[in-house]
Amino acid sequence: MTDAQTPRYALTLSCPDRPGIVHAVSGALLAAGGNITESQQYGSTGSPDALDASDGTFFMRVEVSTPEPLDGLRSAVQPIAEEFALDWTLHRVGTPVRTLLMVSKEAHCLNELLFQQRSGQLPIEVPAIVSNHPDLAEMAAFYGIPFHHVPVDPRNKAAAEQVLRELAAAHDVELVVLARYMQILSDELCRELSGRAINIHHSFLPSFKGARPYAQAHARGVKLIGATAHYVTGELDEGPIIEQEVIRVDHAHTSERLAQMGRAVEARTLAQAVRWHAEHRVLLDGKRTVVFA
Amino acid sequence: MTDAQTPRYALTLSCPDRPGIVHAVSGALLAAGGNITESQQYGSTGSPDALDASDGTFFMRVEVSTPEPLDGLRSAVQPIAEEFALDWTLHRVGTPVRTLLMVSKEAHCLNELLFQQRSGQLPIEVPAIVSNHPDLAEMAAFYGIPFHHVPVDPRNKAAAEQVLRELAAAHDVELVVLARYMQILSDELCRELSGRAINIHHSFLPSFKGARPYAQAHARGVKLIGATAHYVTGELDEGPIIEQEVIRVDHAHTSERLAQMGRAVEARTLAQAVRWHAEHRVLLDGKRTVVFA
Amino acid sequence: MTDAQTPRYALTLSCPDRPGIVHAVSGALLAAGGNITESQQYGSTGSPDALDASDGTFFMRVEVSTPEPLDGLRSAVQPIAEEFALDWTLHRVGTPVRTLLMVSKEAHCLNELLFQQRSGQLPIEVPAIVSNHPDLAEMAAFYGIPFHHVPVDPRNKAAAEQVLRELAAAHDVELVVLARYMQILSDELCRELSGRAINIHHSFLPSFKGARPYAQAHARGVKLIGATAHYVTGELDEGPIIEQEVIRVDHAHTSERLAQMGRAVEARTLAQAVRWHAEHRVLLDGKRTVVFA
Amino acid sequence: MTDAQTPRYALTLSCPDRPGIVHAVSGALLAAGGNITESQQYGSTGSPDALDASDGTFFMRVEVSTPEPLDGLRSAVQPIAEEFALDWTLHRVGTPVRTLLMVSKEAHCLNELLFQQRSGQLPIEVPAIVSNHPDLAEMAAFYGIPFHHVPVDPRNKAAAEQVLRELAAAHDVELVVLARYMQILSDELCRELSGRAINIHHSFLPSFKGARPYAQAHARGVKLIGATAHYVTGELDEGPIIEQEVIRVDHAHTSERLAQMGRAVEARTLAQAVRWHAEHRVLLDGKRTVVFA
Repeated sequence: MTDAQTPRYALTLSCPDRPGIVHAVSGALLAAGGNITESQQYGSTGSPDALDASDGTFFMRVEVSTPEPLDGLRSAVQPIAEEFALDWTLHRVGTPVRTLLMVSKEAHCLNELLFQQRSGQLPIEVPAIVSNHPDLAEMAAFYGIPFHHVPVDPRNKAAAEQVLRELAAAHDVELVVLARYMQILSDELCRELSGRAINIHHSFLPSFKGARPYAQAHARGVKLIGATAHYVTGELDEGPIIEQEVIRVDHAHTSERLAQMGRAVEARTLAQAVRWHAEHRVLLDGKRTVVFA
Repeated sequence: MTDAQTPRYALTLSCPDRPGIVHAVSGALLAAGGNITESQQYGSTGSPDALDASDGTFFMRVEVSTPEPLDGLRSAVQPIAEEFALDWTLHRVGTPVRTLLMVSKEAHCLNELLFQQRSGQLPIEVPAIVSNHPDLAEMAAFYGIPFHHVPVDPRNKAAAEQVLRELAAAHDVELVVLARYMQILSDELCRELSGRAINIHHSFLPSFKGARPYAQAHARGVKLIGATAHYVTGELDEGPIIEQEVIRVDHAHTSERLAQMGRAVEARTLAQAVRWHAEHRVLLDGKRTVVFA
Repeated sequence: MTDAQTPRYALTLSCPDRPGIVHAVSGALLAAGGNITESQQYGSTGSPDALDASDGTFFMRVEVSTPEPLDGLRSAVQPIAEEFALDWTLHRVGTPVRTLLMVSKEAHCLNELLFQQRSGQLPIEVPAIVSNHPDLAEMAAFYGIPFHHVPVDPRNKAAAEQVLRELAAAHDVELVVLARYMQILSDELCRELSGRAINIHHSFLPSFKGARPYAQAHARGVKLIGATAHYVTGELDEGPIIEQEVIRVDHAHTSERLAQMGRAVEARTLAQAVRWHAEHRVLLDGKRTVVFA
Repeated sequence: MTDAQTPRYALTLSCPDRPGIVHAVSGALLAAGGNITESQQYGSTGSPDALDASDGTFFMRVEVSTPEPLDGLRSAVQPIAEEFALDWTLHRVGTPVRTLLMVSKEAHCLNELLFQQRSGQLPIEVPAIVSNHPDLAEMAAFYGIPFHHVPVDPRNKAAAEQVLRELAAAHDVELVVLARYMQILSDELCRELSGRAINIHHSFLPSFKGARPYAQAHARGVKLIGATAHYVTGELDEGPIIEQEVIRVDHAHTSERLAQMGRAVEARTLAQAVRWHAEHRVLLDGKRTVVFA
């Protein structure tokens, strides 16, 4: 039994699967005075059709409340981490994730993220907004967030990305969110940000990759349109998917109307993905994600 | 005011758009003693961004109740049809559409279609079921429908398709439904059946065309899976889409489980498309469909 | 064929059902140089099980483009309106509906409505926001809308409502939206606003009427929660429903978390209802609504 | 690492919450040669707003694979069960749950359950179907299941229920499913079956309790209709909810059409609830359920 003031921590881990992991982890946490309040796991051994795979990976997320400080708890887990070759993270629940937002002209994703953050639904803090257009400066100001207008053209792209890197470093940024930032990042920057940058693609991937997805969707005559939030990787629109959502449309909707309807879906799909990431609920499993929602 | 015994008819039409169509159609129906009980329309002029298109097409579906017999009503519409260059159909509402079902081994789509038909939800009658495997003969027998086992192998494909053509002719078939029929029809047969055959593809098209879509979906790590009911055309998985549906999945679902979950979605997506077709609610607009649901 | 500059109008009507209405309406519009670009209808005669009802009501909404000014078109419809005893409205499409927003402390509905209005998705203009608390003044200021803080307590309720009436009169208000306004309006004011005021109730009505619906939903252990946008009438939470939406929840969600999750649903359900109302797509049918979406 | 032939077991438990439960359980399972392949938990300590509750209850479900037979594993858990005062069950995964189905005239739920069972999606076996009408005997015969026609009228209700009890005893029935059985069970029988009988109510509870819910829904003008699968208790339509689902409807749907559309929702909602129950994923938490889906 714990009380509301006791700190809570989120431990995430992945490792080669073998018996005893759950027992070892729960033992280490118990020894540190912890009470497990939430626990989820997934492994290739949990999947009957993969039982013959000798190289299964085990994934786990545990929330634990304990009076121990972060460092103390980290020390308690360390021996287990070595024994089981854990790839692990440990965060205090509720500590906001330092997040850089990148936008262009469209406001819907920015509005959703900032509104949710302000109203306490999204455990992030936003030290800076970067945009290649000035349009959203006023909205940034309303939320009291420094707005950096960094225009991009083919000749200065490298310089613009360098500004971004410096801002990220200066603000100790842990996460970059491309909230309808309409520039393609360089391969190099994508690699640097791998697993730490989330993009919203305005289609139900892998349908309609690339440009003008709503026009493509209209031409194909689909009956549902959607949005996909995914981690950025070097391959355009191919990063691990975190969240997807769709809505119903019909023949009478023009591609402009599809785009308008889609914006609401993009905004909430992106916000959901950012929330899960900021709550340390998303683990990478190759080109797929494990989401302990 | 009409009473319950008065026949009802569904009139569908498309034509080059111009003012006066609705007035002319409603006038012809009124002159034939008809009362319009349902009416839907769609046209390029209904779409603000297409207003400048000089070649807009107008689509309409009207349900009308009138004591006139079918032939009488047809004669009443004929002059309008010529004046406005209508592409039109007229059916008595409730007359079942003669439908040939084609299946292989999997029962879920067949079960859904036959159950819905039997319980009065699907205005079709099924004079024959054709399968390249014997597995579903018992289910056909339960519903009292003749089952034709027509094995297909690479050498006899043309002969098998000829059997199908003869059955369709003998039974005056108006619609062919590929209810998880696991053979690719020849281009020639696809063209013959164009607009009169509905297929269910077990993915959310245009994602995951071709074989093993659930395995593809699993590998890509999507968070929603779906099914697509579409008209058959010469291009595989490219026919006009009638209906699509999705369900949420997560990382823990194996591709086998995705397939199992997907079957329920396939069955109801296909049944919905067949229902709309059999109620004369689907009009072709190039590679898209207009569905007056 | 019309061009993009031609005005468009939305005509809504209801009347006792009888043959010839569609023909008469389309004739009057054609004579006024109009081209029908959208048309929807509903009537008791469209419902097979109601065919024996001699007192069916017919509902229709037509969009028409014509170079005629509003008054000219109104004159063209007038004779038909008398002949068929129409209850009708005629508006130019796109003319914003003058809307008064009423709020208390919670920002989510206000944020959604103002953001959608600003970004061109909601055909309303907002001359005033009234609140019984000062909390949302800053958001009103960001959107440049006058904010009236009108505190309410049991003794001054009548006076507070009088301020509201005067504001509505001064601004020629056509619609009042209760965007999580946490005061119950007097019966008298409810009657005055009947059909012109939309409320958002934070549950899937008729489940969980009254106070603290999320706590009620949690206690009952429901697996879906929702929101209901409805017209205000004298009976609390009993007005005609315009739109409802739900989301999935589970046992682990506290009632506080249900409330948080529900806010997003409330905001978009209310915005959808306001949109339909402002596009003149909602007609009253006794205690039900006809929504020509 | 385990192989596909290794038995898997589902352990469910609830107990007063205190630190150390997870560690103790995982330790007992590890000592029995077990590898945990799936684990879920829920407790009042996982719920921030309930932290002050000194009487929190902890719920857990674990799947474990081990070569141990069922009795051996049971013995391994027994000491822990006593130490922590567990209320627990242990089942071999895949062992079908012996299920008695009760029906009346409507076939949709029976068809769905039997089809899913036959195609391997539902881990139940059905030794008997009981009906107060003869209509569904043919469908039972198709699936090879004994059909017992037990008419019910006010005078013989007690006798009819006695037949049911005897059938349940004779077939060692673990679960009773009321698959649109249109008789109200006696309070006494409800109590006997508490937690072991699932009913499908054809509305989104707590809306529209009692008779003719679709007619009620139509009269109220709701925009979504639904179905609720719940455990049977002495209070009609008040038992713990296992699953709910909704679909969108509109003003044009008659109450008969609502009923028709609703049948598909009822069938799949009930099947989902039965599946979760039969996989030992549903635990009772007072009037609520914990579903480890």
